Amino acid sequence: MKTEKELIEQIRRMARRADPDLLLGIGDDAALIRNVTGYTWAVTTDLLVEDVHFSFQYTDAERLGRKAMVVNLSDLASMGAEPKFVLLAIAMPKSFASGEIDSFLHGVDSVAQPFGVSLIGGDLSFSPDKIVINITALGKCIFGRAIRRDGAKPGDAIFVSGCLGAARAGLELLRGGMRLETAESTEARQLIRAQLEPSAQVALGRLLAEQRLASAMIDISDGLSSDLSHICQESGVGAILDAALIPVAEADPDANLPTLEMALHGGEDYQLLFTVPPERLEALQRMGSQFRLTYVGKIIDEAGAIYLEENGRRRTLPSRGYDHFR
Amino acid sequence: MKTEKELIEQIRRMARRADPDLLLGIGDDAALIRNVTGYTWAVTTDLLVEDVHFSFQYTDAERLGRKAMVVNLSDLASMGAEPKFVLLAIAMPKSFASGEIDSFLHGVDSVAQPFGVSLIGGDLSFSPDKIVINITALGKCIFGRAIRRDGAKPGDAIFVSGCLGAARAGLELLRGGMRLETAESTEARQLIRAQLEPSAQVALGRLLAEQRLASAMIDISDGLSSDLSHICQESGVGAILDAALIPVAEADPDANLPTLEMALHGGEDYQLLFTVPPERLEALQRMGSQFRLTYVGKIIDEAGAIYLEENGRRRTLPSRGYDHFR
Repeated sequence: MKTEKELIEQIRRMARRADPDLLLGIGDDAALIRNVTGYTWAVTTDLLVEDVHFSFQYTDAERLGRKAMVVNLSDLASMGAEPKFVLLAIAMPKSFASGEIDSFLHGVDSVAQPFGVSLIGGDLSFSPDKIVINITALGKCIFGRAIRRDGAKPGDAIFVSGCLGAARAGLELLRGGMRLETAESTEARQLIRAQLEPSAQVALGRLLAEQRLASAMIDISDGLSSDLSHICQESGVGAILDAALIPVAEADPDANLPTLEMALHGGEDYQLLFTVPPERLEALQRMGSQFRLTYVGKIIDEAGAIYLEENGRRRTLPSRGYDHFR
Repeated sequence: MKTEKELIEQIRRMARRADPDLLLGIGDDAALIRNVTGYTWAVTTDLLVEDVHFSFQYTDAERLGRKAMVVNLSDLASMGAEPKFVLLAIAMPKSFASGEIDSFLHGVDSVAQPFGVSLIGGDLSFSPDKIVINITALGKCIFGRAIRRDGAKPGDAIFVSGCLGAARAGLELLRGGMRLETAESTEARQLIRAQLEPSAQVALGRLLAEQRLASAMIDISDGLSSDLSHICQESGVGAILDAALIPVAEADPDANLPTLEMALHGGEDYQLLFTVPPERLEALQRMGSQFRLTYVGKIIDEAGAIYLEENGRRRTLPSRGYDHFR
């Protein structure tokens, strides 16, 4: 059984990563980070509660550590920030602290390491029952180039990265009793992986920001319809989506999932949704095929209205965002 | 019943506070903060779990909001930082989200407002049972003047601010069934207030940092013995405390609390413990009597050893820090 102090020492050893922007890491009352002229710090925080945001019925400690990191890095990606530092707070039962915590931390580090992200602080404590994880992430943006939600203008083109609906379809398969090990089709395995092992679109976000290609951006955590409505609300605009263009993830032939509905309303894909001014479309195309980007519609001058065009008909698209208190 | 969106809008209105260092506050995937030349950002995070760190048997939503803030601002104070920004994540049952959340937020704001601290982000979510609160706080330090734990040198004088043991004694009184309303003595009320309504020593911390008066500093959250051992470990030194000098809080005449033991080992006083090099003692004295500061001992050249001198005898002082996983 590890003591709290031993656990902190273990994390401290794991966290050692030289970074000129870090003046003082784990081991004091606060970490100290450098102010670098010409840059801005982006800061985001995310709280995950066992059996609300994740369940060990479906995931394991290592995947949980990875996903907890990805959720935060995805928020930084959607600003166009370079992820730099994280603070990790966990409240956990004693059984987890003496067992799976190593796998969890390995998961965290396996995402942090390739991005050069350092763990600079946190908080360990006991929870009698459910595990609670809070990660705060800091990213670096070139001053004036961070991409906000409020910059979309009528006439801008709407793009999404990757494909959509996979994470939600994967969750349905898991809920139906399927597991990675028992999935029969490659597609089913991909869908389950999309749910359990998502990625953050860090490289794409940074490129869009650094080359000033996007006027507004958000990551798709709640679902395309919800997240597009956030952009529209903050920007005071509306949008039309073309159903035929939505990049629905490849379906599992048996379950026939994901559906278009899942691509429109299912969350947790952690792809980027962004708008591009007409005069930047050519520059976007010059980026070539290193990223899968799909044009899905355009921004219109009708504040708050979001339409879906399907088979020549236009209907209002409700934003079915998840409300934690409904 | 508020929806999640209504609650976020309410928090967003509350959070509006102009600050030249804040480029983008609540309402995007991340907040954006300015890099100011000549300064450093101090970052700290703290996770509070209901019935582990607090209990509604003793406190209420407003006091909880205040204490959650104070715990974090105290960490910034111990670096000598000026508190600037907080991110607030809460997971809560629906009943709390529709009721006490207003009082809780009022408590948070009542601490933030006088310090000019802005709420710049966060995360709201559901928890089936216990309330979980995570605050991440950012403070501004003059570059090179933040006070760390690792700067104490043999010969440095050890000081504490305020008086000690009060928060622990207050907890004992609460556990014994006493409440603020039923406490008979002024002293008992003060002790209970110390537990439920602590303050962060922000002004003192900043002054010590800006005037380079302290070689090492920590806030007393775990208890004097524990927190002094953190300074000693990080600095590679030891310490001798003089029992007769420890500023034990004024005792409740009936309960005879706090004891010297509580002042040595009881946590949550959120006073500052700091070391002062001999050549800075005169400058410290010139600060005058605006703060209650007490000399309690000195740093010695014996790594890791902490002694207590009492009635002419010297004994080793164990650090009875709280271990969450014991």
